[in-house]
Amino acid sequence: MVIVMGPEATADDLASIVSVVQSAGVEAFVSKGVRRTIVGLVGDVTQLDAAALRGMGGVRDVMRVSTPYKLVSRENHPERSTIHVGGVPIGPGTVTLIAGPCAVETHEQTLEAARMAQAAGAALLRGGAFKPRTSPYAFQGLAEQGLRILADVREETGLPIVTEVVDARDVELVASYADMLQVGTRNMQNFALLQAVGAAGRPVMLKRGMNATIEEWLMAAEYIAQRGNLDIVLCERGIRTFETATRNTLDVSAVPVAQRLSHLPVIIDPSHSGGRRELVLPLTRAAVAVGADGVIIDVHPRPDQALCDGPQALVDADLGELAQVMTDFPALLGKSAAVAADGWVTA
Amino acid sequence: MVIVMGPEATADDLASIVSVVQSAGVEAFVSKGVRRTIVGLVGDVTQLDAAALRGMGGVRDVMRVSTPYKLVSRENHPERSTIHVGGVPIGPGTVTLIAGPCAVETHEQTLEAARMAQAAGAALLRGGAFKPRTSPYAFQGLAEQGLRILADVREETGLPIVTEVVDARDVELVASYADMLQVGTRNMQNFALLQAVGAAGRPVMLKRGMNATIEEWLMAAEYIAQRGNLDIVLCERGIRTFETATRNTLDVSAVPVAQRLSHLPVIIDPSHSGGRRELVLPLTRAAVAVGADGVIIDVHPRPDQALCDGPQALVDADLGELAQVMTDFPALLGKSAAVAADGWVTA
Amino acid sequence: MVIVMGPEATADDLASIVSVVQSAGVEAFVSKGVRRTIVGLVGDVTQLDAAALRGMGGVRDVMRVSTPYKLVSRENHPERSTIHVGGVPIGPGTVTLIAGPCAVETHEQTLEAARMAQAAGAALLRGGAFKPRTSPYAFQGLAEQGLRILADVREETGLPIVTEVVDARDVELVASYADMLQVGTRNMQNFALLQAVGAAGRPVMLKRGMNATIEEWLMAAEYIAQRGNLDIVLCERGIRTFETATRNTLDVSAVPVAQRLSHLPVIIDPSHSGGRRELVLPLTRAAVAVGADGVIIDVHPRPDQALCDGPQALVDADLGELAQVMTDFPALLGKSAAVAADGWVTA
Amino acid sequence: MVIVMGPEATADDLASIVSVVQSAGVEAFVSKGVRRTIVGLVGDVTQLDAAALRGMGGVRDVMRVSTPYKLVSRENHPERSTIHVGGVPIGPGTVTLIAGPCAVETHEQTLEAARMAQAAGAALLRGGAFKPRTSPYAFQGLAEQGLRILADVREETGLPIVTEVVDARDVELVASYADMLQVGTRNMQNFALLQAVGAAGRPVMLKRGMNATIEEWLMAAEYIAQRGNLDIVLCERGIRTFETATRNTLDVSAVPVAQRLSHLPVIIDPSHSGGRRELVLPLTRAAVAVGADGVIIDVHPRPDQALCDGPQALVDADLGELAQVMTDFPALLGKSAAVAADGWVTA
Repeated sequence: MVIVMGPEATADDLASIVSVVQSAGVEAFVSKGVRRTIVGLVGDVTQLDAAALRGMGGVRDVMRVSTPYKLVSRENHPERSTIHVGGVPIGPGTVTLIAGPCAVETHEQTLEAARMAQAAGAALLRGGAFKPRTSPYAFQGLAEQGLRILADVREETGLPIVTEVVDARDVELVASYADMLQVGTRNMQNFALLQAVGAAGRPVMLKRGMNATIEEWLMAAEYIAQRGNLDIVLCERGIRTFETATRNTLDVSAVPVAQRLSHLPVIIDPSHSGGRRELVLPLTRAAVAVGADGVIIDVHPRPDQALCDGPQALVDADLGELAQVMTDFPALLGKSAAVAADGWVTA
Repeated sequence: MVIVMGPEATADDLASIVSVVQSAGVEAFVSKGVRRTIVGLVGDVTQLDAAALRGMGGVRDVMRVSTPYKLVSRENHPERSTIHVGGVPIGPGTVTLIAGPCAVETHEQTLEAARMAQAAGAALLRGGAFKPRTSPYAFQGLAEQGLRILADVREETGLPIVTEVVDARDVELVASYADMLQVGTRNMQNFALLQAVGAAGRPVMLKRGMNATIEEWLMAAEYIAQRGNLDIVLCERGIRTFETATRNTLDVSAVPVAQRLSHLPVIIDPSHSGGRRELVLPLTRAAVAVGADGVIIDVHPRPDQALCDGPQALVDADLGELAQVMTDFPALLGKSAAVAADGWVTA
Repeated sequence: MVIVMGPEATADDLASIVSVVQSAGVEAFVSKGVRRTIVGLVGDVTQLDAAALRGMGGVRDVMRVSTPYKLVSRENHPERSTIHVGGVPIGPGTVTLIAGPCAVETHEQTLEAARMAQAAGAALLRGGAFKPRTSPYAFQGLAEQGLRILADVREETGLPIVTEVVDARDVELVASYADMLQVGTRNMQNFALLQAVGAAGRPVMLKRGMNATIEEWLMAAEYIAQRGNLDIVLCERGIRTFETATRNTLDVSAVPVAQRLSHLPVIIDPSHSGGRRELVLPLTRAAVAVGADGVIIDVHPRPDQALCDGPQALVDADLGELAQVMTDFPALLGKSAAVAADGWVTA
Repeated sequence: MVIVMGPEATADDLASIVSVVQSAGVEAFVSKGVRRTIVGLVGDVTQLDAAALRGMGGVRDVMRVSTPYKLVSRENHPERSTIHVGGVPIGPGTVTLIAGPCAVETHEQTLEAARMAQAAGAALLRGGAFKPRTSPYAFQGLAEQGLRILADVREETGLPIVTEVVDARDVELVASYADMLQVGTRNMQNFALLQAVGAAGRPVMLKRGMNATIEEWLMAAEYIAQRGNLDIVLCERGIRTFETATRNTLDVSAVPVAQRLSHLPVIIDPSHSGGRRELVLPLTRAAVAVGADGVIIDVHPRPDQALCDGPQALVDADLGELAQVMTDFPALLGKSAAVAADGWVTA
C-alpha cells in the first residue's frame, strides 16, 4: 500500500499517518520528495482501513498495489503518462526523437551534431559530458566544460538537453544545466544515484541494465519515484546475451511488456544496442513499429574521429532516411513525431 | 573453395575434379544433391587454379569464399534470393504471411484456422503434425493423419502447406505431403535431419536454435545447401536469455545481420518468441519494419482448447488488425504482401 | 501417476490396466521397453485408486509423482541409482573416470589414448566415431570403421567403451559395438533419438543441452526412461553464457541440484566446458569436490595433430596429476575411484 | 605502458615525466594514490625509451603491458599477490574463510554469527551495514549503527571486518570502521565508487558483476589500482544465465582464468551464487578444489528471522562440516587455512 501526501500536508499530518500505520504493525517508508511526500507501507496491510486513511489530513491518495513496484505500476494508474522535457512531450500520442553525439568533445562538434539532429527532426539533444567507460584509460568526458557546451548549443538551437550523470555527488551540478538527467545501463542499480536523481527536480531517463529483468528495471524506477519524482522515461538499450554479432541484443518485446506493467513512457536506443551504423535505421523502424514512445540516436559529423562509439553514429547521408522514418511510421500507429510546445522557451 | 557441378556433369567429370583437387593436397567433400552436385574443398586451396577448374567438364561455378559457410554466403551471391513455395514467393520484394494452427488437431479446427489465416492475408498455411514437445507426456501430434488433414485443407483453401519434420526417417513421408519442410529450433543442429531435408527436394524453413549464434545458424543452413538444396528460408524465433517476462527474446537485429551475411530470405516467428497473444501484433509490426521477408503466426479458432501453445494464438478479433499491418507496413518499405503466382496450382 | 509393469505382465494385463484408467477419463501412455513396460497416466488421476491398481495382474509398482518427469524423479525413488557399464559402476559410492580421444582417428591413436586413460585410472574408454560438427566441412568421424577400432581397443585394453550416436537410424549399429551410448549436447532435445536409445538396451549418457535448464534435461531423460530404459547417466558439460574466456561455463551447481531432483547419477565433462587444457585439472578437482559421480575427459597422444578439439586434450605430462586427483579427492568424500567388477568380461 | 612512481617522488619528478611523455605525443593519466603515484600512458608508446624513463627521478618501475588492464595484469607481475586484511593473508599459499551474517541486524545477532564464523575456522568477519536492495521497500541496512556493531564485535572476537560500501560519499565513513571494503556485484561498474575506494587506503574486495566478463572485471579492478591501491581481492559470486534452479550460476572456471590473467587473489562466494543453503557446502568444496584463495560465506543464528537472504545462510549444524572442508581440502592442494598473523592486533 502507498499513501501519497498532497503538497499542503503538514509535518503533523505526516506524523499522524505514520502513527496509525505503525500501530497496525506495518512499517512506513517516508520519502519526502521535491513535489510530494510518499509513504510506502510494507507488511501485513490487511488490518488498515484505506478509506479512513484517505480521510486523514494531507492525504491525496491511498493505493493498494500488488506489484513490488507501486508508484510506477499501471495497476492504479491505467492511463499511460506523458513526461515533458523542456516543453517536449514523451508519451503515448507521440514519438520523440532524441539525437546528438555520444560524447561532447568540442563546441563545434556538438553544434554540428545538434544541427544534424534537427535536420532529422529531433526535438531533444543528447550528449555526454560524464562518460562511464569500461577502461580507466579511455576518454571520460569533459565534465562541467561539456555541460557548458551543451547549454551554449541549447541556446543556439533551442533544443532541450539530455545528459548522463554517473555520480550522486554530481547530480546537483548536472541538474543545473540539463533538462533531463540520464542514468546509464551500468548504473541502473546504483541505488545512491537513483535516490539522488529522484530528489533533483528534473525528468530522468532510466536506461535498462544490460542484464536486468523488466521487473528489476521497474524496481529501479521505483527508487526514483519513491523520492517524489515520477517524471521518468524508461529506455531499452539492448541486453547481454551469447550473441556476438551485435554489441547487445535489442529486446523490442520489452516495450509492450513494460508499457502494460507501468504507466511510464518507454523509448529505445537503437545505437547502443546494435553498436553498428548499418543496424540503426532498421532498429529505429522496429522501435517505432513495436510502439516505443521515442528513440535516442547517436549522430556525429565525423564519426571516424569520435572519441566514443563512432562506429554506431549516423552521418549526414543517413539523416534524410531517419527523418522519413520519423514521419511515416508514427502515422501508421496514429501518432506523430513530438515537437516542442508552442511558445516554450528552454531553460 | 566450392565447386558447383552442372546437372549435365558425369561421374567421370566428378572423378577428374576430385583427382585434381586431391593431388594438390586438398580434401574434397562431394555432396550429390537432387538438383546438383557440390564439391566443398577444405585445406590449403592457394595452389589450386580456379580458372582451370572452371574450365573442366561439368563444372558450373567455382567460388572462393572466406566465410565458413560458403553456399549460403552473400559473398559470391550479392543478390538476395527469392524462394518459391507452391508458387508463393519469399524474398526481398515481398512480405509473406504464413499462418495456421500450432498443431493440427482435427480437420474442422485446421480448416477453420486456415480460413482465419486467409482472412488475414496469409499466402501459406502452417500446421504441425509432428510436434517436438519437452515432455513425453504432452500431445505429440497426429503424425501422418495430421499430414492428410493438411493436404485436404490445402485442397479446400488453395493454401500451400508448411509443416515440421522432426526425424530423418520421416522426411520422405512429410515431403510427400508438404510444400515446405520446417526444421524446428531444437533440431537446428540435428545434422542427420539437416542432411535429410537437404536431399528431399522441397524448400526448407530453418528455425534458429534458441541458443544459436547467427554464424551457427548459417552453418546449419550450409548443411542443407551442401546436399544440393538452396531453397532455404531462415526463421528467427527468439533466443534464450535471462529475461522471464517473455518466453524467449525476439532478436530483431538478427534479420538485417543475417541478410547481410547470407543471400537467403529471413522471416520472423512473433508467436513463439513472445509466447503471449498480446505481443504478437506489436512484434509482427517490428518484424516487418526491421525488414523481415515474412512472418509465421499461430492462429486458432478456440485457443483455450488448443492442444499446444494456445496462449499465443491470435483469434478472430485480431485478424483485421493483422491484415492491416500486412498492408500498411510493407508499403512503407516499398514491398507488398506476397500472394501466390497467378495460375499456380498447389500440389 | 506412473504404472510400472513387471516382465511377467501379459498383453491382457496391460489391456485391463488401460481400460480401467481410460474409464476414469485419464489418458494412458504405454511404453513397451526392452526390460519393462511403463504406463504413464496424464490427466486428473484423483479418481484412480492406486491400491486397487497395484493389486491388478502384472503390476509391479504404482507411483504418484508431482514433478513433470516421473520415472527419473527422486520423489518415489529416494535411493540414488548406480548404473553399470560393462561391469563398471557409476553411482553414489564411487567416482568413475571415463577418458579417451574426442574422436577416433586411427587404431594406433585410439590405443595410445586408451593406454593414457588407463594410466590415469580410467575405468571406461570414450571415443567418437560419429562426430556432430558445426561445419559440414569439418571431420565427421570414421563411422562404423571407428566403432570397429573401439571394439578392437576394448579387446586389447579391457576398457568398456562409451561412444556417441547422432542419428536414430544408427542406434542399432552403435549399440552392437558400444557398452554405453552417448547423446550429445546438440541432440538433448532430439526426441526421436532419445526414444531410439531408450529402446536400445544399452546404458545411455545424456549430455545436458548447452542451453537447457535442469528441468528440461530431466524431461529429456524421461523420454529415454519412458521407453523402458532407466540406465541413464546425466552429464553436465557447460552451458552457454555471455562469457567468452571459456568455451562454455561449467555449471557445477547443476550436480547437487540434479542429484536432489533425480535418482540418476550425474557426471561432469571438464574438457568440453572449458575448452582449454589448463582448465581441465582444476575443473576436474571441482567436479569431484562438488559431488559428481564421475568425470569424462579428453586425452590424446598428439593433440596438435588431433582432428577434433585438440586444444582441450590432456597429454602424457598431465596423467600423473589426474591420477592423483582421482585418488585423493574421492577419499575426502568417503568414495573411491570406480573399477570394473572382478571377473567381468566386457562384451 | 605504466610508470609507477616511488613514495619519494617529488612534484617536479612527476612533471618531468609527464613532459617527456607528452612530447612523444602520448597521453599521460596521472593517478595520485595514498601510497604511490601511477602514470598510465595511452597512445603510441613505441617512441618512448623505457630504460631512459626508468632512470628518471622518482621512478620506481616502468612496465610495458599488452592487456587493456595494466596494473592488475600478471604479464609484468608473474608472482601472485598476497593481500593482508588486519593481519590475515589472502593469497596463493592459503585458503581464507570469511564468514558472517549477510546483514548486521543487532549486536546480539552479529556476535552470535561471528562466534559461528570462528567455530568454522573463519579468519575474517563479513557483515553488511549498507545493503543494496532491488526494492526500495526492503531493509536497507543499519548504516553507521551497523558499522559500530561490527567494530564492537571485532573488539570482542578479534576478527577483522569486511563490509560493503555502496556510495562514494560513504567511503571515508566505512573505511574508518572496516578492515576491508567490499564493492558489490551491482556496483562493479560504478566507476565513481571504484575510484573512491581506490583512494581510501583500505584493501578492497571487488565482486564480479553478475553479467560482467572476466576482462571487464579486471578493468574494474584497474580503476581501483589506478588510484594507487593494489590491495584488491577479486570475488566470483555467480553470473546471470537462463538457469532458474539456482539464483545465479557459479562460474568456477573464472578462478583459474582470472588467476592466470591477474596477480590478484581470487575468492568465491558460494552463498550468493547458489542462493540455497543445501548448495553452500558442495560449492565451497568446489571453490577450494578449483583453487580459490578463499571463500566468503553467510552464517546466521536464526535464518528464518533474517532480514536479508536467510535461505542461504548456514546454521550451527553445518559448521562442523564447513570446518572439516576448510581443513581437508586446502591440504590436498598444499595449502592451509589462513589465520591471523601472530601478535597482530586489529584496528
